Amino acid sequence: MADPAPLDVRIQDLLRHDGQFVRLRGWLYNARGKGRLLFLLLRDGSGICQAVVLRDAVGEEAFALARGLGQESSLELTGTVAADPRAPGGAELKVKGIRLVGPSRDYPITKKEHGPGFLMDHRHLWLRSRRQMALLRLRHRVIQAFRSYLDGEGFYCVDSPMFTPNACEGTSTLFRTDYFGEEAYLTQSGQLYAEASAMALGRVYCFGPVFRAEKSKTRRHLTEFWMLEPEIAFAGLDEVCDLAEGLVRHTIRHLLATGADDLADLDRDPEVLRAWDAEFPRLRYAEVAEMLMAWQAEGRYESEFRPGDDLGAPDETILGEHFGRPLMITHWPAETKAFYMKRDPEDPSLALGVDVIAPVAGEIVGGSVREDDLETLRRRIAEHDLPEDAFAWYLDLRRFGSVPHAGFGIGLERTVSWLSGVPHVRECIPFPRTLQRIYP
Amino acid sequence: MADPAPLDVRIQDLLRHDGQFVRLRGWLYNARGKGRLLFLLLRDGSGICQAVVLRDAVGEEAFALARGLGQESSLELTGTVAADPRAPGGAELKVKGIRLVGPSRDYPITKKEHGPGFLMDHRHLWLRSRRQMALLRLRHRVIQAFRSYLDGEGFYCVDSPMFTPNACEGTSTLFRTDYFGEEAYLTQSGQLYAEASAMALGRVYCFGPVFRAEKSKTRRHLTEFWMLEPEIAFAGLDEVCDLAEGLVRHTIRHLLATGADDLADLDRDPEVLRAWDAEFPRLRYAEVAEMLMAWQAEGRYESEFRPGDDLGAPDETILGEHFGRPLMITHWPAETKAFYMKRDPEDPSLALGVDVIAPVAGEIVGGSVREDDLETLRRRIAEHDLPEDAFAWYLDLRRFGSVPHAGFGIGLERTVSWLSGVPHVRECIPFPRTLQRIYP
Repeated sequence: MADPAPLDVRIQDLLRHDGQFVRLRGWLYNARGKGRLLFLLLRDGSGICQAVVLRDAVGEEAFALARGLGQESSLELTGTVAADPRAPGGAELKVKGIRLVGPSRDYPITKKEHGPGFLMDHRHLWLRSRRQMALLRLRHRVIQAFRSYLDGEGFYCVDSPMFTPNACEGTSTLFRTDYFGEEAYLTQSGQLYAEASAMALGRVYCFGPVFRAEKSKTRRHLTEFWMLEPEIAFAGLDEVCDLAEGLVRHTIRHLLATGADDLADLDRDPEVLRAWDAEFPRLRYAEVAEMLMAWQAEGRYESEFRPGDDLGAPDETILGEHFGRPLMITHWPAETKAFYMKRDPEDPSLALGVDVIAPVAGEIVGGSVREDDLETLRRRIAEHDLPEDAFAWYLDLRRFGSVPHAGFGIGLERTVSWLSGVPHVRECIPFPRTLQRIYP
Repeated sequence: MADPAPLDVRIQDLLRHDGQFVRLRGWLYNARGKGRLLFLLLRDGSGICQAVVLRDAVGEEAFALARGLGQESSLELTGTVAADPRAPGGAELKVKGIRLVGPSRDYPITKKEHGPGFLMDHRHLWLRSRRQMALLRLRHRVIQAFRSYLDGEGFYCVDSPMFTPNACEGTSTLFRTDYFGEEAYLTQSGQLYAEASAMALGRVYCFGPVFRAEKSKTRRHLTEFWMLEPEIAFAGLDEVCDLAEGLVRHTIRHLLATGADDLADLDRDPEVLRAWDAEFPRLRYAEVAEMLMAWQAEGRYESEFRPGDDLGAPDETILGEHFGRPLMITHWPAETKAFYMKRDPEDPSLALGVDVIAPVAGEIVGGSVREDDLETLRRRIAEHDLPEDAFAWYLDLRRFGSVPHAGFGIGLERTVSWLSGVPHVRECIPFPRTLQRIYP
């Protein structure tokens, strides 16, 4: 009697088809076995399934084919789903038929250790490894969480441009391009444009790639990465802190709810994430500086930090350990901050900025209230030696119905790195671009 | 007796607060009235509300303030919501208090007609006009629809890089940048990378900006625009046609369900969109060519089209009129098509491509089955005079577990232009970049 036509299913849905005759299509991740029995691990992007091949069930020819398959051969397997709590994913496939779709010989990425340079050169293939697939899916879920949270809060996605005639924070780290004979820059931040959009739609965000020609070679730097930048009209520091906290905590909950398998593939304990879904302490820079100096005096940690400085890695580390969850630091010394930040009316030496410092990862969010007074902003632009011409349109926002407004930026890949526990941001973007890498 | 603290609400939610004491925050869109009565139209990005100001209700001083307000002044209005079917949005505000937040004098965009150059120079302000706000919101909804449809179909968002070392379809329309001493290009399409990602995750899409240094000055061209590119492993022409039709029809339904107010602001009859949510006819190029030649012979329209040519504007127009809904054209003459398109095994002079031609708008989707055979693809790269080195990684996808796969690209701004009925794509992106424009 002929088998019925198999049902095409994806591995993530396998358990729902217990006992049914199905077809899986994917790539050979690994194989083992001996004698008359083979275990094929098949991956299809949605998960990895153990397929049991018995010589007696598939016949001599198909068994020989299965035994000779190279890693990453593409296959169609037909067979019956069998729930089994011991199998990865809770179900395995009892194979009836095997069809080789595309062969694969001498796949370059094997079980042995490969150096990061080799893996990066083969990024187009490295993406197929369990950990990298999990990271891509996690990144997808963080994107979903960012957008669904803001959409739910009444925000509109209004994309800022990539080509810009002016630089937001200095020109030394800008990529330039020849724009039909004129010089144009690639954007470093969509914020200034998001401010214009917020004056139109009230609550907006831009979410796209930004570019930094930084010569840094740290694990936290990419020349191209994705940044989410919400901007709120009629808002101040409290609203921007509330929004940042709400967004980050929503993202954590979304990963816990939808990404359990990915976290498992990354050996990430969900309890670590769960602990961060708690109210974020909000401290002023001055309070934090006092704590850090006291801890230094007590010999609890070593650091070159002095009041007035930006936080360094050891400072962020100890704060993360102390609080055990993300921390919001507000009211920063104004000198080091960008020209567009509003000063604290009660102490003009302070800028109404907020950074969110996450345990282990360090800074993940940078936000501020924006200067909304025309004359103050003009003076600030002059003080920073920026060309007023280029900011004429930006100044218009303070000329015609200026309102208090605030926003922040959160880097997608840094967030993925933080939540996944994978320290290198280069693994948290599909095709990383760094000082030394533009291939593949 | 003091009023209770007002509730902060957005205009879109006004009707839900009928009878309540609320605060609205926004900008003055327009004002009219005489004597003791003023109507202020306030916009807050979520909608426009008519606020009724009676001198006797607000007092002499506030009334004088209200009467002197310039267009786009920013305001806080407190008052009581009163449902009124005659008011725009179904409710108006009976004003109790007025606070001027930021003045606005001599706002440059007035009721009179402005030329497109002037409006584009003031794009940062032009976004505040009713039609532009509606277009921004519509674009937001199309983004939502694109993502929610694909996420629901089991796709993962995997972004392709912006910086690329190689060109997908020729180098004449590429923007170049100096990448730490090497030459790099800005991406024209994320497809090749999406193919690699599909081999990892099975069903993927990239959705980001792409760049074309085209010298075209038509209403359909931007140098920077957003493109959605889904890619499916283990799929052929039928699957890619199904997905494109499903995506476009879902987008139409999402706009009808969530964007009724925006369509109204754009004077767009929803029935026009509703008619397009019907099965898309699928024809082969040869059938379409035969129809076009017959119509020419009958004198029904004039065109330079001959079998073998690409479709021109008059051909797309008459097809749109004839079918009254989007049309899918498959099996194109191969010579004119990109190197990566798979040929029809039954007739190698044909490429397994599909274009979706929409009424009025013309081509909105371009897709194809991708060549999956290593040697064929190598030959194709050589025939197109492309450097094999640059495509080494792309060829690897055919070396290690190649599978049939297919995908398409759909331009975000062209989709917004088509569905909104606004013919110029430059109005369908927040900050357009064209041959002659990179400001603001």
